[in-house]
Amino acid sequence: MNPFYRRPGAVYSDGKCVFTVWAPLKEKVILKIIYPNEVLHSMQCDAWGYWTVVLDNIEVGTRYVYLLDDTLERPDPASVSQPDGVHGASEVFYADFNWSDSEWKGKSLDEIIIYEIHTGAFTVAGTFDAITDKLDYLNDLGINAIELMPIAQFPGECNWGYDGVYPFAIHSCYGDISSFKKLVDAAHNRGIAVILDVVYNHMGPDGSYLCDFAPYFTDRYKTPWGDALNFDGPYCDGVRNYFIQNAIRWLDEFHIDGLRMDAVHAMWDYSAVHIMQELSEHVRALETQTGRKKILIAELDLNNTRYINPKEKGGYGLDGQWIDEFHHALHSLLTGETDGYYSDFGALEHLEKAFKNTYVYNGTYSPHRKKFFGMQVEDNPYSQFVVFSQNHDHIGNRPVGDRLSTNISFEALKLGAAVVLLSPYVPLIFMGEEYGEKNPFLYFVDHQDETLAKNVSEGRKKEFSYFDFKDDYPDPQDKDVFMRSKLSWEYSEGSENGILHTLYKHLILFRKSHPCLINKGRDSIQVQRIGENILIIDRIHNAHHIRIFFNFGKENQCVYNQGFQYKKVLDTSDVIWHGSGGSAPAHIETNTSVSLNPLSAVVYEKVCMENRE
Amino acid sequence: MNPFYRRPGAVYSDGKCVFTVWAPLKEKVILKIIYPNEVLHSMQCDAWGYWTVVLDNIEVGTRYVYLLDDTLERPDPASVSQPDGVHGASEVFYADFNWSDSEWKGKSLDEIIIYEIHTGAFTVAGTFDAITDKLDYLNDLGINAIELMPIAQFPGECNWGYDGVYPFAIHSCYGDISSFKKLVDAAHNRGIAVILDVVYNHMGPDGSYLCDFAPYFTDRYKTPWGDALNFDGPYCDGVRNYFIQNAIRWLDEFHIDGLRMDAVHAMWDYSAVHIMQELSEHVRALETQTGRKKILIAELDLNNTRYINPKEKGGYGLDGQWIDEFHHALHSLLTGETDGYYSDFGALEHLEKAFKNTYVYNGTYSPHRKKFFGMQVEDNPYSQFVVFSQNHDHIGNRPVGDRLSTNISFEALKLGAAVVLLSPYVPLIFMGEEYGEKNPFLYFVDHQDETLAKNVSEGRKKEFSYFDFKDDYPDPQDKDVFMRSKLSWEYSEGSENGILHTLYKHLILFRKSHPCLINKGRDSIQVQRIGENILIIDRIHNAHHIRIFFNFGKENQCVYNQGFQYKKVLDTSDVIWHGSGGSAPAHIETNTSVSLNPLSAVVYEKVCMENRE
Repeated sequence: MNPFYRRPGAVYSDGKCVFTVWAPLKEKVILKIIYPNEVLHSMQCDAWGYWTVVLDNIEVGTRYVYLLDDTLERPDPASVSQPDGVHGASEVFYADFNWSDSEWKGKSLDEIIIYEIHTGAFTVAGTFDAITDKLDYLNDLGINAIELMPIAQFPGECNWGYDGVYPFAIHSCYGDISSFKKLVDAAHNRGIAVILDVVYNHMGPDGSYLCDFAPYFTDRYKTPWGDALNFDGPYCDGVRNYFIQNAIRWLDEFHIDGLRMDAVHAMWDYSAVHIMQELSEHVRALETQTGRKKILIAELDLNNTRYINPKEKGGYGLDGQWIDEFHHALHSLLTGETDGYYSDFGALEHLEKAFKNTYVYNGTYSPHRKKFFGMQVEDNPYSQFVVFSQNHDHIGNRPVGDRLSTNISFEALKLGAAVVLLSPYVPLIFMGEEYGEKNPFLYFVDHQDETLAKNVSEGRKKEFSYFDFKDDYPDPQDKDVFMRSKLSWEYSEGSENGILHTLYKHLILFRKSHPCLINKGRDSIQVQRIGENILIIDRIHNAHHIRIFFNFGKENQCVYNQGFQYKKVLDTSDVIWHGSGGSAPAHIETNTSVSLNPLSAVVYEKVCMENRE
Repeated sequence: MNPFYRRPGAVYSDGKCVFTVWAPLKEKVILKIIYPNEVLHSMQCDAWGYWTVVLDNIEVGTRYVYLLDDTLERPDPASVSQPDGVHGASEVFYADFNWSDSEWKGKSLDEIIIYEIHTGAFTVAGTFDAITDKLDYLNDLGINAIELMPIAQFPGECNWGYDGVYPFAIHSCYGDISSFKKLVDAAHNRGIAVILDVVYNHMGPDGSYLCDFAPYFTDRYKTPWGDALNFDGPYCDGVRNYFIQNAIRWLDEFHIDGLRMDAVHAMWDYSAVHIMQELSEHVRALETQTGRKKILIAELDLNNTRYINPKEKGGYGLDGQWIDEFHHALHSLLTGETDGYYSDFGALEHLEKAFKNTYVYNGTYSPHRKKFFGMQVEDNPYSQFVVFSQNHDHIGNRPVGDRLSTNISFEALKLGAAVVLLSPYVPLIFMGEEYGEKNPFLYFVDHQDETLAKNVSEGRKKEFSYFDFKDDYPDPQDKDVFMRSKLSWEYSEGSENGILHTLYKHLILFRKSHPCLINKGRDSIQVQRIGENILIIDRIHNAHHIRIFFNFGKENQCVYNQGFQYKKVLDTSDVIWHGSGGSAPAHIETNTSVSLNPLSAVVYEKVCMENRE
């Protein structure tokens, strides 16, 4: 490992508090304690540009800033607490925690079902404690991993989290270090892993003082958020260290089980060892050290298996990646939408390809991107790819943040759930999806900088100028927009919401228990498309065989069954699921036709001779 | 292969001339024939943005431009002839050539010794014909590959070639298509491969009209020359095709044996399939088709084996790369220079590491780059790396373009030659180096754009402002600077130049004939450094064993010999090489000391019992 690397911030060690800050181009850095008493402490710089001072008698709650070259006073880039917000002083913080998860070994991607949560919008309280209170509900639902949208300190009181500027600090509205550890510990006690969404591709914009400290940014590359983080230029090691230490801190000190790394394609790095590879090597070492699996998932818009391939194949060694194309293929089929990036999708063959080849654009021409895009997935197992019918982005980045539940029929919702949960990929459910939450998930911010706030409000309005808001434009700065995005938790037994909820539970249990669905090997699945509406997925494990029919058509369809004899085990159009029923038979014979209700998913299991009814 | 791809330019096929130009965003493109008669021909656009027209009766010598959207008249970006320079009309050109190299199979990197040539400066005439006349000289020297600095059409009459703007056109001063083919054919008949230096990382600046045709450039990345070529954004396939077709044309139609690709680290490409990988796949297909080896060499400043690794290891599949660090380590040792990028070198341990690990900075901290740099070379054979004691860059990018021959002693020159030619790497000799040419190789241009010319002249003066030019600043625009850079060919028998020339021949012959030197496996070499001055290189092949002592010290040195019994086979300080002689003995025994003259290379061969004298 790089001898340069060390934990930045204010860290207790042997009863002393070590302050470490990276500022390689500064002539002088002074630690200025503000509370309880104002005191200045000069710091020493080492060969790598890290300034340190070790102090006795620093109490938890001490407030401090750094004074740079006698001119700028700035909070600590590695602050763990910003009680007065992103522009305020940093706070020294530490709390002992009595972990009760010593038996916990983590989870691997091939066994998890992820539930994505925005801490603020998940509950009325919008806190970690309130999530903890919901863990029994989640456990009952059957999911075994929660993924929290970024929790790092962001400006203001509400934000999706991608505007965070203190990646080491927990946002003050969500709770403190102890309440977060309590959530993780309680999750582990229920067999639920905790994945954290982290943003290593940009900062801020509001409240980021990184560039006052060191060359954290470079103008060699552009990102949607401005200058890129400096992962490969002069002084890049301090930047690399900052994020690697951040990852290690969550995974180690907080017992976090995995990271979902935001838009890693915007982490420009032409180093011989890519930052993703270096980070994964550090995390693998931590796995060995802790005996716990740590999952690394990239959000990646490159259709390039290099990120998830092992080092021997020239890969960066991450565990998996999000795969938006599966979503796009499914969403455009269910909604009929074909604008924007959905213009590359819309036909059943796209979903067929998403099942067969994973990357829909795998070296083929993408009209939307105006280029040939992607590469062939070779032997990467299905369990390296995370799929979903909805997530925060694809709901929240719509003009009025509307969920599928308000856009498509109940039958289509059930079909969408079955496609995701019966797929061989790692499924991700967006909070509330499981009961057809009707509240939107809107884009909300609370920027303190007035110009920025105005720009965001107007920029978003302009982005969606094609849309008729009917004078009801949801302004991201409007506090009500955040409140409207909270889950209603409205589902009751017998209502469509309640039935959907039961179906999700049923599908999750089926997925976790049936050997054919547990097997995610690339050779365990066969995909057939019949015309424009029917997809047949065969899932095979040894002598077991499941045949799944998806009918995306709005009419009843007849499909010829060439396989074995089957008995029906699930039909989303059955009366028990509030469907019309009466179409797909309980048993089918070889070389007969099967009738399928519109927008239905029907699952058959092969009948073995010895246990035929 | 991408169905999009096709050969651009004016190409004869079945007696007709097919004009093809890529301009995907234009509404209208017209072929305007200017000579022999002015005629306009409308063109048809296909789905990929290629405009074509097929015409009868187009004679060789026809001049043409393209009229874009009725407003701009521009030469053909894929023009093969620009008789009136970079701003003039393009010329249709084709000439039958009677190849006599049908037995030629190409050469692989592990067998070649490269001789780098600037066509204009190599001879008084400065033409391909004049190089052809020198082939017997080169054959006698023993090299078996010539590498021509870029020959594509550049502005004005003289240029290193890296300002080329018509990569398909041969610069008119050097000769025509026929004289170039004649050179290649004649080289092949002497067993000499021809490598072409090509520039796929930027264009121009003077005379490049690419951006008038299509999105050839992107502002997402920066290069030292401005906006980067668009290898991964919307419409990138037209750009990728342009360069791939260019590579294929040289390698196929011109029987070129390999490409040295300039600064490929400036070819920014985040596609799943990097342009270098795609290009190499096309070239491998051509190898299969022609039955001839085609060498792909990258100039690469990333210390990243990904470029030269096979696809199975996630590599791009190039054959080899230039390795500047070997040069820097050797140059700084021989000259004592430690400024600029030489500040990362200067001690014998750097050259030791260059022999042992190939990459001197292999994941270690580079003070000059201000970052940890590079990665470990694992099992890449030595023959994937091209080394040199001098090349056009490291001479020409000095304030007065001075060669080692005017900077270091005759003994040091001989030592440098032995280090390169007895190394397991692929050696490259810069024209004239073999006889200690004293003329400089200066930076010269002939820009027609006055502002650009002035900027280049002043920019260069400013770059070297630390240097005392004594009122004799070699202005790159000054025609005399080009003339002064031509080889003098001054060497005569018995003179130091003549002796050096004989030594180069001797070393080359030795390298090509001794089994220990032919073997370039990574396990066939052992490297020992003794103190600050002595490097011992053992080259081993089966029972054969060669021990090479390099003494970089300015004093006589004694080295303890722990190995076998050896007989001396070469000593650059011997009287026959115009040295002082009398130091290293003809035979050495085990466990005795060997005395080495200052700045000498001494080669011993292990004495086998059966053939001991």
